[in-house]
Amino acid sequence: MIKASIIGATGYTGIELIRILKNHPMVSISKLYSESYKENKADEIYPHLKNNLNLNFCEFSKENFEDDCDIIFLALPHGHALNLASFFINQNKKIIDLSADFRIKNTNHFYEWYHKKHTQQELLKNTLYGLPEITNKINYNHINFVANPGCYPTAILLATIPLLKFNLIEMEHFVFDAKSGVSGAGRSLQLNSHFCEINENINAYQIAGKHRHIPEIEEQLNKFTLKNIKIQFTPHLIPVTRGMHITSYFHLKDNVTEKNIYESYINFYENSSFIRIYKDNILPQIKNVKGTNYCDIGFQIDPRTNKLIVISVIDNLIKGAVGQAIQNMNLMFHLEEDLGLHFITNYP
Amino acid sequence: MIKASIIGATGYTGIELIRILKNHPMVSISKLYSESYKENKADEIYPHLKNNLNLNFCEFSKENFEDDCDIIFLALPHGHALNLASFFINQNKKIIDLSADFRIKNTNHFYEWYHKKHTQQELLKNTLYGLPEITNKINYNHINFVANPGCYPTAILLATIPLLKFNLIEMEHFVFDAKSGVSGAGRSLQLNSHFCEINENINAYQIAGKHRHIPEIEEQLNKFTLKNIKIQFTPHLIPVTRGMHITSYFHLKDNVTEKNIYESYINFYENSSFIRIYKDNILPQIKNVKGTNYCDIGFQIDPRTNKLIVISVIDNLIKGAVGQAIQNMNLMFHLEEDLGLHFITNYP
Amino acid sequence: MIKASIIGATGYTGIELIRILKNHPMVSISKLYSESYKENKADEIYPHLKNNLNLNFCEFSKENFEDDCDIIFLALPHGHALNLASFFINQNKKIIDLSADFRIKNTNHFYEWYHKKHTQQELLKNTLYGLPEITNKINYNHINFVANPGCYPTAILLATIPLLKFNLIEMEHFVFDAKSGVSGAGRSLQLNSHFCEINENINAYQIAGKHRHIPEIEEQLNKFTLKNIKIQFTPHLIPVTRGMHITSYFHLKDNVTEKNIYESYINFYENSSFIRIYKDNILPQIKNVKGTNYCDIGFQIDPRTNKLIVISVIDNLIKGAVGQAIQNMNLMFHLEEDLGLHFITNYP
Amino acid sequence: MIKASIIGATGYTGIELIRILKNHPMVSISKLYSESYKENKADEIYPHLKNNLNLNFCEFSKENFEDDCDIIFLALPHGHALNLASFFINQNKKIIDLSADFRIKNTNHFYEWYHKKHTQQELLKNTLYGLPEITNKINYNHINFVANPGCYPTAILLATIPLLKFNLIEMEHFVFDAKSGVSGAGRSLQLNSHFCEINENINAYQIAGKHRHIPEIEEQLNKFTLKNIKIQFTPHLIPVTRGMHITSYFHLKDNVTEKNIYESYINFYENSSFIRIYKDNILPQIKNVKGTNYCDIGFQIDPRTNKLIVISVIDNLIKGAVGQAIQNMNLMFHLEEDLGLHFITNYP
Repeated sequence: MIKASIIGATGYTGIELIRILKNHPMVSISKLYSESYKENKADEIYPHLKNNLNLNFCEFSKENFEDDCDIIFLALPHGHALNLASFFINQNKKIIDLSADFRIKNTNHFYEWYHKKHTQQELLKNTLYGLPEITNKINYNHINFVANPGCYPTAILLATIPLLKFNLIEMEHFVFDAKSGVSGAGRSLQLNSHFCEINENINAYQIAGKHRHIPEIEEQLNKFTLKNIKIQFTPHLIPVTRGMHITSYFHLKDNVTEKNIYESYINFYENSSFIRIYKDNILPQIKNVKGTNYCDIGFQIDPRTNKLIVISVIDNLIKGAVGQAIQNMNLMFHLEEDLGLHFITNYP
Repeated sequence: MIKASIIGATGYTGIELIRILKNHPMVSISKLYSESYKENKADEIYPHLKNNLNLNFCEFSKENFEDDCDIIFLALPHGHALNLASFFINQNKKIIDLSADFRIKNTNHFYEWYHKKHTQQELLKNTLYGLPEITNKINYNHINFVANPGCYPTAILLATIPLLKFNLIEMEHFVFDAKSGVSGAGRSLQLNSHFCEINENINAYQIAGKHRHIPEIEEQLNKFTLKNIKIQFTPHLIPVTRGMHITSYFHLKDNVTEKNIYESYINFYENSSFIRIYKDNILPQIKNVKGTNYCDIGFQIDPRTNKLIVISVIDNLIKGAVGQAIQNMNLMFHLEEDLGLHFITNYP
Repeated sequence: MIKASIIGATGYTGIELIRILKNHPMVSISKLYSESYKENKADEIYPHLKNNLNLNFCEFSKENFEDDCDIIFLALPHGHALNLASFFINQNKKIIDLSADFRIKNTNHFYEWYHKKHTQQELLKNTLYGLPEITNKINYNHINFVANPGCYPTAILLATIPLLKFNLIEMEHFVFDAKSGVSGAGRSLQLNSHFCEINENINAYQIAGKHRHIPEIEEQLNKFTLKNIKIQFTPHLIPVTRGMHITSYFHLKDNVTEKNIYESYINFYENSSFIRIYKDNILPQIKNVKGTNYCDIGFQIDPRTNKLIVISVIDNLIKGAVGQAIQNMNLMFHLEEDLGLHFITNYP
Repeated sequence: MIKASIIGATGYTGIELIRILKNHPMVSISKLYSESYKENKADEIYPHLKNNLNLNFCEFSKENFEDDCDIIFLALPHGHALNLASFFINQNKKIIDLSADFRIKNTNHFYEWYHKKHTQQELLKNTLYGLPEITNKINYNHINFVANPGCYPTAILLATIPLLKFNLIEMEHFVFDAKSGVSGAGRSLQLNSHFCEINENINAYQIAGKHRHIPEIEEQLNKFTLKNIKIQFTPHLIPVTRGMHITSYFHLKDNVTEKNIYESYINFYENSSFIRIYKDNILPQIKNVKGTNYCDIGFQIDPRTNKLIVISVIDNLIKGAVGQAIQNMNLMFHLEEDLGLHFITNYP
């Protein structure tokens, strides 16, 4: 059994990690570290865990760290992993970091977008950007530190990379219009997660090149294409708890058919059990992936404009965060990639 | 492996049965019968099943019935099981009926509330009302036909029976104020499941002794107490998809303490892994049981009025329907009662 | 024109007051005092006011108070009006206080439930509890200070008082099961107004005799009946922004018919244009009163139990707060009671 | 007083027309024709109208038509106005048609998109496309028949036309990503307005050049520019009852600044009291216009891509349908354009 601990166990990603790790056949949970609740029984704070977890939350400190876990999940706000990562590496722990701290290789970009100097450049070089359907699986050999992708980048890159690989689209004028559930903003209190502000509303935020997932997406696209692609990315908050829906607009190359596109996706993802490609004009919806690790992709060509519209949907907390982290863990430990991740959505 | 078939596979309970049976370690699905979709691939109609189920829906007819299944789940509107049950009994199938047709032993009451003559009185005698936490487990031996309880009766009886058993409450003035998610009304189209009629609203319906779950609840209470209890039951629709929340009001007997109540519940449910009893004034919420087979129960005494208020919550489609049906199946086949039902809610 | 100012103009009640006062034909807004925004233009913080209001928020201080308004609305958290009221009385302002500070005449009860000594007992005696449909209109003559009722008390008293007046119900075992929208909890940040905690959920809170609206309701019932009634009151939060729905349970006196009840309500409210009584088994719903000053009341008798179930619904921010305050203002200034309050809901 | 009648009074637009006409100072309602309810009192079917409207619904027939109204609002499904319009013209009634039947001047396009031959070409020539902020006001003189624009075209054209007028954007690669509340789909029953299908979901529909509002939008753009613009338009359904949010993407011409854009909008709409232009990076939200006749417009330039992103929001049933119809009526009768339309949203 793999012994796993979580730092930041009481946020929305932490608590979802607990659920999935608890049901994972090859994992036992070691420690649950939390700043917010330092002594409480887990099911006292989160009664949905009652009968399932007999653990207390505890405080993390480097000084008194005694945890024989094999892997640490860092589920912390951006900036914290920078300070903690080398400590755990020195303790011979494997690490999966769910924050942005080690996602961007270009430290100038990191500074520009996160207003923080990257103090761990050596470690950054040995970190794997872990989007398992895109990343070469061979890269997981001997890797100890995975930077888990952001939710928006996951849904966008999975829709886009196969089209680039098979040379189906022009490399400019990418528009990604994104709609996200509110859980992506976390459990901390802020006016724009107040029920009355979200309910019966939709609002765009950090539009026109301001959202911090842009450099992450562009770095991956440019690594893949060796170009200097600039994307248009517009995130919106919609009144749902979970789920993410991306409407992508691409300029199609000449003479590309829907059949070409379908086959390219199928081909690209033939070994990826979490990607489902739709055809016959059926379009993905959040409700088909909520609570699962799937990314569903559908598309149509507009013959009037020769544009390709692709819809991709994920559960922002699972394929967009925790489920993907478990996929990465499975690969780091040479387990089946989908172990412990066979969820079907609770329809309706 | 148990081979299971579903009649009525494409309604909300049918589709949820598919999901849980698919993941059950001792079950393989045999046939999925549907009136609405007679030939389609299941994942064509319900894309959330893609990659998980390679079956077609098919039409049921007695004439051409060739199905070597061991058990049939009837997930049909009220009235249909009356016509089908004896056919399957003659075929030596076990049956779990999710409709109301065989829940009420008193056929006069059945006629009075359902306006239908009960044509299967012999069969009715051999049917078990299958609320596993209340029903004596010994009754499952040799039983072939289980009537699966209604959603409201499940949440109400689980909150009430232990209080009667330990003689903690007066046997009159029971008030059950119930709030249900919209999925309980099914997938068929009606004005009161139109989004714009439900959203930003709450409405009571069939109040003041009109709802058909009343005779079912009263029969069970009266069977248990040998009294003639009449309940007050008020159902409301709230703008959530899944979940049921019952606020029960009881007159407390003298000198009963919260400790007495807690211990009575704990005692009554000591072997029931799906019932979770809350204490320390924490109150159950739908969000802790959604997507699970749990019934969570919490309570407080009002010393000003000597009333006991009990809150019980379930997922109406799981513990209130399909999950309970699987519990019943497990018991009929002498499996562990909770096999294939270990769900933790996707919080938040 | 009446010149009106608001203290606490930027909370949910404050901002709704602005809207209604702005459209009131006999009012001009004088000043908008706010702690949160001390200089901003109103439509900069609340863009929905753009083109409608050319005013800045400003800071209130007793020292620099120069405001020639005729009436002050206090839309502040509980406790603040205690300190401010006499100041405004000395300035010859009329006052409508939307907090609980002056609602309860029994100062022992006030202390017991609000944990605060009532320091303004003299003033309290001269304060009118302003529920216009219940309060004798003659009492508004010469009154300068109105305590505006709470939202739950408004919806509960309007449903109950006529039944007591016409002696239709027993004076015990009152059960009020209440469901409220989230705006009632205000705009301040707290976990139980976080979208993800409210959405797809319902939760009871402060049950079993703990909610602070209980002494207010009981004082009014007891003033009316000269009895010592104790009520059972259970508030729940439902995932809607606005609206309040009360399901009331009463023991009926012998031989009371639905016709008796209907006529009693009609009779009691014959001069009350904001109370609408339903018949023919149609039940009130939040969606019929949202955005209006109406209280809709419907009911049914259960002949099986001889209980009367009454449903009353209001918009918690209008009839439950701001609209009622304007009604009170109209009466204080001898205007038509319904002036500026003719709203029909935006169905759907 | 203007006497107004509605054909199709019981759908969502019909019922909203009733509300606004009822409160309009220069209108009295004559007749309410409905197919669904032919004799009922209006407030029996729609209790929210109680105390406000003492009218019955009635059946329309050409044979027995006796209605001395001045204006008829046609709130019918597409196709019906084609058959009715000339009848009313012959009766000397003014007409506002809320369907698509007379919006598109190019009858080939009408046939192509609506699969119906346009049988009223003469009448069509004399019909005014009534988007009052764009249409020259002089055109309203002597006009008797107005085709009321669609909801999507309203929100899109109001955002786009000023940019074209002032030559700020390229005339290609227009992308309009639209999100609409469910009331736009009407009150008729269909699976994609079932609460459980919409709630906790978002879905795109009729994407890639399939939605029928496309020819209407393009005709207006091309009339204005004398070009042959093809747009990309992607509608989505979001889980809100009312509201429409358009995210528009434009290629900016060189050296255009945010100041240029702001001033162009302000200039274009200087006499339009229902258009509100945002600045300082504040973005429009549905919640600021819900229940009102406003169209709020905000925008930002992305200097990285030289794209302009514009957000426009309306209430789909008011500015997107009924409110705009009343604006058109006011102009046809030479009243103030905004008479009876001064609504501020019920925030929150």
